[in-house]
Amino acid sequence: MPSYIAPVDDMMFLFEKLRDNKNYNEIEKYKEVSSDLVRNILEEAAKINQNLILPLAKKGDENPAVLENGVVRTPPGYKEAYQKYIEDGWTSLSCDPKYGGQGMPKTVSAFFDEMLSSASLSFKLYSELSIGAYNCINHHATDEIKNKYLPKIVEGKWSGTMCLTEPVCGTDLGLLKTKAAPQSDGTFKLSGQKIFITSGDHDLTENIIHLVIARATDSPAGTKGISLFLVPKFIVNEDGSIGPRNGISTGSIESKMGIKGSATCVLNFDEATGYMIGKKDKGLNAMFTMMNLERIVVGIQGLGISEIAYQNSLAYAKERKQGKTNKTKSTNGADFIIEHADIRRLLLNMKSIIEGERALCFWLSQQTEVSLNHHDEKVRQEASDFVSLMTPVVKSLFTDLGMEITNDAMQIHGGYGYTKDQGIEQLYRDNRITPIYEGTNSVQAADLVFRKLSNKNGDIINKYIDLIKTETDLDNEKIKPFIKEFKDYLNILVKFSEWINEKTKTDRDDVSAAANDYLKTLGFVSVAYAWIKVLDVSFKDYNENKNFYDDKINTAKFYFDKILPRAEQHYKSAISGSSNIMNFKFN
Amino acid sequence: MPSYIAPVDDMMFLFEKLRDNKNYNEIEKYKEVSSDLVRNILEEAAKINQNLILPLAKKGDENPAVLENGVVRTPPGYKEAYQKYIEDGWTSLSCDPKYGGQGMPKTVSAFFDEMLSSASLSFKLYSELSIGAYNCINHHATDEIKNKYLPKIVEGKWSGTMCLTEPVCGTDLGLLKTKAAPQSDGTFKLSGQKIFITSGDHDLTENIIHLVIARATDSPAGTKGISLFLVPKFIVNEDGSIGPRNGISTGSIESKMGIKGSATCVLNFDEATGYMIGKKDKGLNAMFTMMNLERIVVGIQGLGISEIAYQNSLAYAKERKQGKTNKTKSTNGADFIIEHADIRRLLLNMKSIIEGERALCFWLSQQTEVSLNHHDEKVRQEASDFVSLMTPVVKSLFTDLGMEITNDAMQIHGGYGYTKDQGIEQLYRDNRITPIYEGTNSVQAADLVFRKLSNKNGDIINKYIDLIKTETDLDNEKIKPFIKEFKDYLNILVKFSEWINEKTKTDRDDVSAAANDYLKTLGFVSVAYAWIKVLDVSFKDYNENKNFYDDKINTAKFYFDKILPRAEQHYKSAISGSSNIMNFKFN
Repeated sequence: MPSYIAPVDDMMFLFEKLRDNKNYNEIEKYKEVSSDLVRNILEEAAKINQNLILPLAKKGDENPAVLENGVVRTPPGYKEAYQKYIEDGWTSLSCDPKYGGQGMPKTVSAFFDEMLSSASLSFKLYSELSIGAYNCINHHATDEIKNKYLPKIVEGKWSGTMCLTEPVCGTDLGLLKTKAAPQSDGTFKLSGQKIFITSGDHDLTENIIHLVIARATDSPAGTKGISLFLVPKFIVNEDGSIGPRNGISTGSIESKMGIKGSATCVLNFDEATGYMIGKKDKGLNAMFTMMNLERIVVGIQGLGISEIAYQNSLAYAKERKQGKTNKTKSTNGADFIIEHADIRRLLLNMKSIIEGERALCFWLSQQTEVSLNHHDEKVRQEASDFVSLMTPVVKSLFTDLGMEITNDAMQIHGGYGYTKDQGIEQLYRDNRITPIYEGTNSVQAADLVFRKLSNKNGDIINKYIDLIKTETDLDNEKIKPFIKEFKDYLNILVKFSEWINEKTKTDRDDVSAAANDYLKTLGFVSVAYAWIKVLDVSFKDYNENKNFYDDKINTAKFYFDKILPRAEQHYKSAISGSSNIMNFKFN
Repeated sequence: MPSYIAPVDDMMFLFEKLRDNKNYNEIEKYKEVSSDLVRNILEEAAKINQNLILPLAKKGDENPAVLENGVVRTPPGYKEAYQKYIEDGWTSLSCDPKYGGQGMPKTVSAFFDEMLSSASLSFKLYSELSIGAYNCINHHATDEIKNKYLPKIVEGKWSGTMCLTEPVCGTDLGLLKTKAAPQSDGTFKLSGQKIFITSGDHDLTENIIHLVIARATDSPAGTKGISLFLVPKFIVNEDGSIGPRNGISTGSIESKMGIKGSATCVLNFDEATGYMIGKKDKGLNAMFTMMNLERIVVGIQGLGISEIAYQNSLAYAKERKQGKTNKTKSTNGADFIIEHADIRRLLLNMKSIIEGERALCFWLSQQTEVSLNHHDEKVRQEASDFVSLMTPVVKSLFTDLGMEITNDAMQIHGGYGYTKDQGIEQLYRDNRITPIYEGTNSVQAADLVFRKLSNKNGDIINKYIDLIKTETDLDNEKIKPFIKEFKDYLNILVKFSEWINEKTKTDRDDVSAAANDYLKTLGFVSVAYAWIKVLDVSFKDYNENKNFYDDKINTAKFYFDKILPRAEQHYKSAISGSSNIMNFKFN
């Protein structure tokens, strides 16, 4: 079984030294979230993840969730762990105190998301969608519904799902067939089939609150006729108690490559009672509130799995002897593989990506809080635009690099990485869903180039590049070599952005074919931007903690030497255009 | 279950049009291997792979090989299929007619290896190591041993293994502990444990012939005291009949990420009778004969799995509708995903890599045959040097790109690629062993930079680059744009080679840290070289088969536009050196 120690020090470094967003620091309600409080939370979080949740990963892989007589049973140990998890209040960490939450900002809860992803993604998914449902209901439902459902969801006694996909519609929700027939009492009867529903059924909670998109029987075809409904597994009585079973049954659960502890369900809705959330035919907008926050969390999943893959690769490299290094001092026998240049390169590849991603994610958490909670609407809007821009980048880049990192972890472990005993190959299999769900990474890339670079508020990508330019205009002598290199790649991003902008007007297929490459270039440059912030602190506060900052500076150097050059290759590959691709005859 | 149609036309194109090695064409015994004969063989090979072997892949994944009461049982259907396989003579395809083989050159048998890898890697492994054992015995054993063992191995009634790895020695064979005690009759008694032994035990053949490296009790420590022994599962009587069981037992079999149909065994040798092959203490040299040919076959495995991943991605893209394209003609509903630029890009990524690899592999097969069979020793030696140079490249590049391609295949299939039903995720899991076994890809890269670029015969890499320069000095007008771009990347390879050569003298850690990048640059340029050969034929013979050659030309164009630029990024990343990497303190 892989081991895991939560990287609390690195997280606290970010919370204490990188909380540099002026607007974030103006949010009144977070002013009392002190470093001491946060360290306390993270240390408690580390304990539950390391001790209670981590062992569930292997258990869930060996004893997948099963469907027996119409009932989904979670793997052994999940129930007991979930009880402890909700008793300790972890579901409520980022929720509104009004509904029983602890009101922590995403600058803190994102760290918890990362730890939980490291410990067991399968287990995490049973509460993750509850937070998604919480956010969606909180933003779009009536007070009546909020008061009825949110306290139980926040408490963790009820869980949530997002029911979007159907057999013929994954990416393309306009094709959905699930119908909602209006009833005289204002409710709806939903009928249809939803597939790939994460935590669609399970035995951990008293009730499951499904958020379902469906087409009202009198609504138009396509995406303009989609509404959002709250459909509980058990009807909730007026007094909040659990009533009769609703018309929802579990048809089957998927047998998957990984996250086997998580139940991925086919749900059949047969005249199930549902309550409309938000406006009729505007269901996709409401669902996207939930999905956008969820997409960032999926990026964090990739980061969390990368972290545990790195930790175990490092530990193995320190205990496995094989071959002699170029400068071996051994006269007999092999050296530890951590002495080999190529293994060190792989480890630094992981470390420099992970720590850069964590810093970028912290930047994004601040922006997200500003977008949700700043008192000035204009400030909120600008932050929201940055969050929208970077959501597909974080989702795709972190999950793709998670595959690279878990794959490299197997390689460092050699044959032992391929066998089941050590649990390393499971990390790849579990992570492999992250580039697929919540919109495949290609869908994210298309979203980025066609909808996020500019919007009704103007040219968002240029505002973002201007922000980077301002924030990296640093005159510390030691940081200058980094800045010099950074500017070269920022220029590539500028040129690439101009190319995309131009091609969007003249040949959208060129843009479609380049979208994944563009996302990568933007992503690698953004991680470098986060590293510049880390470097700035590292040089300024160097004498406070020399070992820590030496580690940061040298890790950053690796990123700039070895990873950042990838940004250029993506640009070169992309600008050759798409005519050959589009004209190709696939026989 | 994935479908598969063997790419016989592409293989025949290579056999008929790319058989351009003058020395190969001088080999007397292959002059009668006609196109008609080869097409006949490939069509029969296609049938058995498509019909009989392909279904074994999923069966083996769902019903892995098991160890019961000390006996390994292969998955359902393997026995019957193996019987048919050997009755039809497929084990003997490339073996010497003297021992019952069909004497086909590797220019043909490599195609069969590819098909079999596409159909079922697990099933393939039961006969693949037999061919390895055949080669090793044929090159290094006495006539007595050859006559006793080879006919049965060629016939497929007995199979073979390579027993190298032990618990503390994988890459580093000098550490091995298995002992061989000399007996008065000239035989040895072997005792020790071998792990990760592919097909170490199974129920498909009457006997298993293990080739085991061990240390004679009076031999020195380290790699200079290793000898090679033939150790049969059952002692073979003087008359060739099966005698008593030898002192070998199966301790356990591995539970693995993939190739679950293949039994990966822990073998315990307890005073097992063995016969020395080749010279005492020179066992590694003999084993490397077997390993080098085997490494090329592992590269071909990566190619074969890539091919089936591509075929199924293409078929799915043609039947799955999702989203609208930029130039949609649909007024209602989605377009086929093959109309989307990004999906087309992924498909061409696969196709251009696969066909380029197949062409490069065909070039290598010709060189291999020249190295083994040309009448002129000097010619043999030069070809052998090229084969040695390109063996680690083909092994590593093809298997790493196999991971990229099987991974992309999952992505194209979306959620359906992650579930077990369609068998797509199995392709990744099965392929994932190929960058690990037969020497990890990092071991291959180290082998390349430290042992293959130059040897006692001189500067091999420069001879190779000169060969490429001569062969790509083409004046066809249509090929010129390709040649122009190719020269840019060839120059990068030249500079990178000079850098490696220089650093080998001054800082070997720089070379170690750059080895994987160098292998990739050499690999991508070599695949481009193979594409240039294909292009040359395509332009010259264009009117013979316009559709076929248009397909080739446009596929090549994709490779040059989108894939070849990666060669430069590896160079840039590598030349930043290793001092930061080597000095890094991993806390």
